[in-house]
Amino acid sequence: MSQLRWDPLKLHWVIMADEQSRKPRDFFTEWRTVTTTLCPFCYGQEGRTPAEVYALRPDGSPPNQPGWRVRVIPNKYPLLRIEGELAPRGVGLYDVLNGIGAHEVIIETPDHQRHPADFRAMELADVFRAFRARIMDLRRDGRFRYIMPFKNHGLEAGATIPHAHSQLLALPVIPPRMRQTLHACREFFHRKERCLLCDLLEQELADGRRIIHADRDFVALAPFASRHPFEVLIAPRRHGHDFCQATDAVLLALGEVLREVLRRQRSVLRDPPFNLVLHTSPTAVPRPGRPDLWHSLAQDFHWHLELVPCLARPAGFEWSSDFFINPTPPEDAARFLREAEISAGV
Amino acid sequence: MSQLRWDPLKLHWVIMADEQSRKPRDFFTEWRTVTTTLCPFCYGQEGRTPAEVYALRPDGSPPNQPGWRVRVIPNKYPLLRIEGELAPRGVGLYDVLNGIGAHEVIIETPDHQRHPADFRAMELADVFRAFRARIMDLRRDGRFRYIMPFKNHGLEAGATIPHAHSQLLALPVIPPRMRQTLHACREFFHRKERCLLCDLLEQELADGRRIIHADRDFVALAPFASRHPFEVLIAPRRHGHDFCQATDAVLLALGEVLREVLRRQRSVLRDPPFNLVLHTSPTAVPRPGRPDLWHSLAQDFHWHLELVPCLARPAGFEWSSDFFINPTPPEDAARFLREAEISAGV
Repeated sequence: MSQLRWDPLKLHWVIMADEQSRKPRDFFTEWRTVTTTLCPFCYGQEGRTPAEVYALRPDGSPPNQPGWRVRVIPNKYPLLRIEGELAPRGVGLYDVLNGIGAHEVIIETPDHQRHPADFRAMELADVFRAFRARIMDLRRDGRFRYIMPFKNHGLEAGATIPHAHSQLLALPVIPPRMRQTLHACREFFHRKERCLLCDLLEQELADGRRIIHADRDFVALAPFASRHPFEVLIAPRRHGHDFCQATDAVLLALGEVLREVLRRQRSVLRDPPFNLVLHTSPTAVPRPGRPDLWHSLAQDFHWHLELVPCLARPAGFEWSSDFFINPTPPEDAARFLREAEISAGV
Repeated sequence: MSQLRWDPLKLHWVIMADEQSRKPRDFFTEWRTVTTTLCPFCYGQEGRTPAEVYALRPDGSPPNQPGWRVRVIPNKYPLLRIEGELAPRGVGLYDVLNGIGAHEVIIETPDHQRHPADFRAMELADVFRAFRARIMDLRRDGRFRYIMPFKNHGLEAGATIPHAHSQLLALPVIPPRMRQTLHACREFFHRKERCLLCDLLEQELADGRRIIHADRDFVALAPFASRHPFEVLIAPRRHGHDFCQATDAVLLALGEVLREVLRRQRSVLRDPPFNLVLHTSPTAVPRPGRPDLWHSLAQDFHWHLELVPCLARPAGFEWSSDFFINPTPPEDAARFLREAEISAGV
């Protein structure tokens, strides 16, 4: 079983593989495209994957058969496993948990060739509906603290199978970065009784230079302190801490803005590999000053999407310091994306 | 002038380029090797670089001429500039500083072809002497809070010029990751009157499974919660917070262990690109509870080197969460490195 290990000096968690430990030779073949004659994510190959845990299908169509629009399966090679005990323990100065969690794959379309920027808004909304359903289901498992859906597009972004898919990890701890963001949101709210991201969106809309797209429901912007060139944040204008409370109408509006941004990104940056991450409230957060008591959701958080094209590869300095160098100011990135010529929608 | 920008939601600093802002087309040619007929780091090309700020030369040899063993120059395309005012200011919810700092290049050898693993221990010690001299000089500038020498080897690790060199950044703020580590060290010391890394080394030496090399002066180990496969930490056995207090004899011993580890890494991992970072006490740290008062050095820190080969490329999940997935447990990595066959030293 894999382990979660805590570093008391550098203060991070790591998921440490066990059974599938990679030997030196396993790295020498890295970055080759996985080419198989039969893609396991295509129609007719359902038997080659673990049994589905969720699918969007025409009413009455049987599971694990063709006919689905979106299909969610446990990852065949999971980083974390659902069965077993967390067994938190100390090993001298270190902290260790068993690698308990969930690791699922969201197959976003039956179409092997479909590019994410060519999804219709309704198809993207279907993917978000799958995220919502899976988060709501996994949240009922009291062992999980943080559930994070994310998408890798392109080999350099970590996608080893080209057929469009996302992944979802349910973690038994809140990642340190999220913990810090949650803390910042809570502090801000306690002091001002306003949401930090609501205020940031207000300031950005008034300024305008970093806005890529704004409509009634959503804002897409290049963050003022973007760590990566052409990074985009998409957030609902109306405060909401919990992605799972978004209605189908809101998810359709989110699909529309994401489609818009993906098409602009593909046009400006020539179809870059990218990562997309959904940040929503953790399933449980410790009470301020009472880490022994947990309440259910962080109301002062504001859910959002982060979209990061893989353009510049961070170097040693950035890894070690978490102090990033961005060669493209977000004001320029937003302008390029705003002015992009994109063909009319399907 | 570049800017340092603070993100109040994600809590990180970014160096935002200005004059040299990269356009979309600038990314399309990324990762090509820079090939020039005349390398600016070779003998006879000294006039093509900024004037040297430090060099190891035979006594009496004139600056900016051949004859040097190690040569330090300001970076021709600096991320941060030494001239000007920091001018810290708020921009609504954001914090901004002017891009003030130092960005230097340490040319490690006149030999264009020399591979880092083929440096003799004395030659590596010369590079460390240059680090020490530059940190001591830059520390006198009260605007700088953190000085970090680092090395990128190989194009994929960020080295655009193949001639062996390191870089050094002097930053006007302490990177958040270092601030957390410093805090952890201080807390540990206040509670126990012992150094955290001293205790970690003790525990690791007693366990033995993650030790790659240990001698009278240094320990090289694969950290228990390594974020990256085959990551190595090298630390002095005797507590020292300040790299600049290391004597020439200690730097020679450090050169010996680094040479040993680099040769083992090259053998096991087939000459991977890598990043090497020196972590030493910041030049100034805030007093606990009194952020307005700064004292000069963090005595409870313990300086060390971090060596990270570029094998697996982190994906979106890891970027966003700072929750890393390591496919090779450090126990396995240490065993491979310990058992590596390396040819006898020069």
